[in-house]
Amino acid sequence: MVRQSWRFACVFLLLLGFVGVAQAEMTREEYAIKFRKSSYSVLGWYYGSMHRVIKGINPYDQAAFLRDAERVAFLSKLPKDGFIAGTETGDTKAKPEIWTKTELFKEDNDRLESEAAKLAEVAKGGDFNLIKEQFGKVQKACKTCHDDFVKRKTE
Amino acid sequence: MVRQSWRFACVFLLLLGFVGVAQAEMTREEYAIKFRKSSYSVLGWYYGSMHRVIKGINPYDQAAFLRDAERVAFLSKLPKDGFIAGTETGDTKAKPEIWTKTELFKEDNDRLESEAAKLAEVAKGGDFNLIKEQFGKVQKACKTCHDDFVKRKTE
Repeated sequence: MVRQSWRFACVFLLLLGFVGVAQAEMTREEYAIKFRKSSYSVLGWYYGSMHRVIKGINPYDQAAFLRDAERVAFLSKLPKDGFIAGTETGDTKAKPEIWTKTELFKEDNDRLESEAAKLAEVAKGGDFNLIKEQFGKVQKACKTCHDDFVKRKTE
Repeated sequence: MVRQSWRFACVFLLLLGFVGVAQAEMTREEYAIKFRKSSYSVLGWYYGSMHRVIKGINPYDQAAFLRDAERVAFLSKLPKDGFIAGTETGDTKAKPEIWTKTELFKEDNDRLESEAAKLAEVAKGGDFNLIKEQFGKVQKACKTCHDDFVKRKTE
């Protein structure tokens, strides 16, 4: 009985240790996946804020819209840093084509960056019709890359 | 028996529907929590990249370090947007003091923003000793805010 209790205690401590390590230490690859998903979530926050203005849910405020547009322009450059080697599988909806059709992936990324930069430029001018038009181009850049490189729930 | 099977089928479909809705629709408050955690993860990615240079694990490259420092300076301004009303509880390690000691929270945030901005400035100069010193101040700003406002695992 005493020996049995010791065995349980050891297993329990090992498990505790394991959970501790698992929480404290993420591999570089796991963090890269977390990083790129996080950067899209942050980008999406400001994109959503602009989208609600475009749809007429929230009123247009030039300074606030410009701030959101500038943030999206800045953030659009970040996610690509997370598609490092060894992150093709794991907790990710990224299609394997990202690592085989690298030219197309770069093209899709560049399009988002450039359309988002243009939106920040147009937002400075404050012409809401031009802003709407350019927002549509950012939206299309998102959709193109999603169609090309993001797995759907059914895939 | 037939009636029983129908009941099971209904419960099953209801559950399926519920999971679908839960995945598709996040409340604004849930997204705010996800957003702020994500913004810290993105910031942490570039902070970690600098930290490895400071610790001598990776070599110092002026342009790469400057880019990381500028990203951290930019990103340090974002998380506060996610501490909206109604996000005091949920999937968060944020202490309730964030919403009661608002002055101190602002002070801690401002300190991070200002030390991170200074690091980006110092990084332009390329003097590694000054960079190290200023990195320490950013590190301290992180720690102060964590001590004040982030729950530990044991809390």
